Amino acid sequence: MARRNEHTKGELKALALDAVLVIAERDGPQVVSARKVAQEIGYAPGMLYHLFENIDDLILQANTRTVSALTDDLVRATKRQSADKAVLTMALRYLQLAQKNGRRWQLLFEHTMRNGVAVPSWYQAQTAKLFGLVEQQLVRMCPQKKSVEIQLAARAVWSAVHGVCLLSVTGKLNVGGAVKEARLVESLVQNYLHGWKSID
Amino acid sequence: MARRNEHTKGELKALALDAVLVIAERDGPQVVSARKVAQEIGYAPGMLYHLFENIDDLILQANTRTVSALTDDLVRATKRQSADKAVLTMALRYLQLAQKNGRRWQLLFEHTMRNGVAVPSWYQAQTAKLFGLVEQQLVRMCPQKKSVEIQLAARAVWSAVHGVCLLSVTGKLNVGGAVKEARLVESLVQNYLHGWKSID
Repeated sequence: MARRNEHTKGELKALALDAVLVIAERDGPQVVSARKVAQEIGYAPGMLYHLFENIDDLILQANTRTVSALTDDLVRATKRQSADKAVLTMALRYLQLAQKNGRRWQLLFEHTMRNGVAVPSWYQAQTAKLFGLVEQQLVRMCPQKKSVEIQLAARAVWSAVHGVCLLSVTGKLNVGGAVKEARLVESLVQNYLHGWKSID
Repeated sequence: MARRNEHTKGELKALALDAVLVIAERDGPQVVSARKVAQEIGYAPGMLYHLFENIDDLILQANTRTVSALTDDLVRATKRQSADKAVLTMALRYLQLAQKNGRRWQLLFEHTMRNGVAVPSWYQAQTAKLFGLVEQQLVRMCPQKKSVEIQLAARAVWSAVHGVCLLSVTGKLNVGGAVKEARLVESLVQNYLHGWKSID
């Protein structure tokens, strides 16, 4: 545990964001609170409110790290791949993230803004960037499709893959008979794209 | 609230199962407990253990009502439909259930067996029946496909539609831009089936 007053504001911020992800992964996403985070880094909870607007801001900034690491990983992994291959690679990497860092990944989705406040635009821009990667490949695949069709298809593929991930992380896939998650993702992405490209 | 000793064992069982679904819908699936259910029907929690093996048994029996009502609804709704239309109808009905009775629907998926006990075979048989409805239509569509391919496709379609439902119920779909859930389900089912039928 760190001692008080040893860190700059920037260092403290980084420590707090690390702590959010550590707590989510170790104790579960629902356990993350200002008190827990402060305790983890050895400071008083009040200190966090000098660095973050509120608990939402703290969690969203921590989630941004996950989204941004995923974005970088997908860009690296899909370099020089065909459009079809790239979408499949992204889907399988997303599944990998969910399976390896399940709780950190759940924090992305289980967090909802307190008091119905809207998600801030900087966070929306970050997730839009992630969707943008899929959309780029869909445009490469079918340049003639309208942008609403591209957007819908990107969200359809994401929802489908996300469904497999959630059922996998919560251990529900076997209720319907044992299947390999990666095979489901492959089947979904390949068949969906095949259909999508051939239907005008 | 009912008074004690007014009901037969069968009536009490039915009351308790009703209460599980009422509590899930009103207070959220995570709130369902033996104490809450007993309180809801005006009996002592100990009484429930004369009727059900444990809380898992109580929740699974309540979930069976949801699964069985859904199964009946899907059979009715898809009578005399083509195989393609029937799969789409089932997917849209599933979405409707999730949107109209979101918390009751979540109880199906958020419940996990205490102490890692296996899901009992009578419950598995009930969910298998639901999958069977989709599999039947896939067999009608492509009688030449192997049964492992049929099973995989049924689970792929379910996972995909389930993903849309979960993101819808938890209000996460708009993070990636506003889209209509039913349009996503249609796009997923139609394109997936089109691809699935044309790839051998």
